[in-house]
Amino acid sequence: MNDSSASIGVFDSGMGGLTVLRALQRSMPHESFIYLGDTARLPYGSKSPGTVQRYALQAARILVERDIRALVVACNTASAFALDALRKRYPELPIFGVVEPGAAAAANSLPGSVLVLATESTVAGGVYQRAILRKRPDLTVHGRPCPLLVALAEEGEHEGAFCESVLRHYLHGHVNAGSISRPSAIVLGCTHFPVFRPALERIAGADTEIVDSAETTARVVADELRSKQDGSTEGQPAVRLLATDGVDRFRRVGGYFLGNSIDEVELVDL
Amino acid sequence: MNDSSASIGVFDSGMGGLTVLRALQRSMPHESFIYLGDTARLPYGSKSPGTVQRYALQAARILVERDIRALVVACNTASAFALDALRKRYPELPIFGVVEPGAAAAANSLPGSVLVLATESTVAGGVYQRAILRKRPDLTVHGRPCPLLVALAEEGEHEGAFCESVLRHYLHGHVNAGSISRPSAIVLGCTHFPVFRPALERIAGADTEIVDSAETTARVVADELRSKQDGSTEGQPAVRLLATDGVDRFRRVGGYFLGNSIDEVELVDL
Repeated sequence: MNDSSASIGVFDSGMGGLTVLRALQRSMPHESFIYLGDTARLPYGSKSPGTVQRYALQAARILVERDIRALVVACNTASAFALDALRKRYPELPIFGVVEPGAAAAANSLPGSVLVLATESTVAGGVYQRAILRKRPDLTVHGRPCPLLVALAEEGEHEGAFCESVLRHYLHGHVNAGSISRPSAIVLGCTHFPVFRPALERIAGADTEIVDSAETTARVVADELRSKQDGSTEGQPAVRLLATDGVDRFRRVGGYFLGNSIDEVELVDL
Repeated sequence: MNDSSASIGVFDSGMGGLTVLRALQRSMPHESFIYLGDTARLPYGSKSPGTVQRYALQAARILVERDIRALVVACNTASAFALDALRKRYPELPIFGVVEPGAAAAANSLPGSVLVLATESTVAGGVYQRAILRKRPDLTVHGRPCPLLVALAEEGEHEGAFCESVLRHYLHGHVNAGSISRPSAIVLGCTHFPVFRPALERIAGADTEIVDSAETTARVVADELRSKQDGSTEGQPAVRLLATDGVDRFRRVGGYFLGNSIDEVELVDL
């Protein structure tokens, strides 16, 4: 597992995690990656913790069988429910989730309030809120479920009047000028949401920091692997994409999140 | 299977089909129903036809084992892909889908154009468009994918300024006054969408008929069972609700679609 030519494995319930893969590729341009989107069984957010653990272990096994030397769980629900089970099953493998890095970055923000934008289940589970408050009990943390944003992101509407009206709907009461709860930071607590970052920055204004958990996760992974002197610094990197269903849609829509057009997606059965 | 005291089985990938159950209850107030939402594996729309058939057969088996005398497939994707397989497996059981009744009602509309609002996969599959054109080749049929509407329906936002702005976004170019493509009928081609009917009627205006496939399906089922003299006309009807995951959310959100609060949902494993 510590062959530094092996890939870094990334898995998500679907294609939102491609924003994490994109950030990882930017942070570690010489690394090879293998990404698995469990599109046949998404969304994980509405499933019970036990089911999510079982799915995460199955997904991890597929990646481990293909020889990875680190695993990034690019899915908020699986990061919340399955990290312990994964680390127990693969004690030698460095395993990273997306929640802690995002929460740590938010905990560095100025005094005031933090607004977590996430799916209904991530907000209801309270995982970001707790992780931020553990580090910074003085902050006020609001969770705002944004169920329309996943569909909007997959529709490719990341700018423009309609997109902004949907974003403003979810920010209502949080970023109006002079609002008492105007946040010092907004956490993008869903891997689909980084595509809205430019529009959110414009709406929220310069005083609010946008914490992109894809980027913060990529930084943590890169730092950790570098500290172990475990990393490729040369060579032609490869990226393989796997999905459990709907490979045509994955190719078509996944490009929004990866930031590149997608040529090949391999169908795998879990 | 023809014991008229047996329930009518209804199945959907989730809780949208509860709009169909609601319409069935109105059409046949003395009947008992058993509803299965395959919430563990939704959405079906992004899955391949073979997978949808397999899931539909598993769901049907659960209902048949509980003694039903008719089956309503209250899911557009399963209606499109699995009706033949279901009828082959259960040749004695009357089996109804939601696509044909909605298409038949749309085909009765005035000359002009028909706008089908549906999920991305239903529009891409073209099942409504083909079914309407088979009956009325003179109509122009537009399919409009509305991916945000499922989340909006589950969020409980069925009226008000934000809801209307999302609906107007999807109707843009179709219902503006004087638009050349102003439709003579709008088909609600997703079982989640009947909750938007009042708002859509207001936006579309009196000249556009709203075809609600939940209602049209219920009418077809009621007529067919009545023609077989197979129906309860007395007694205290019962409704049982089953789901494959997330029963708490089903109870909480399902009420929007059933039009009644939901007390009990039984968890089943497929």
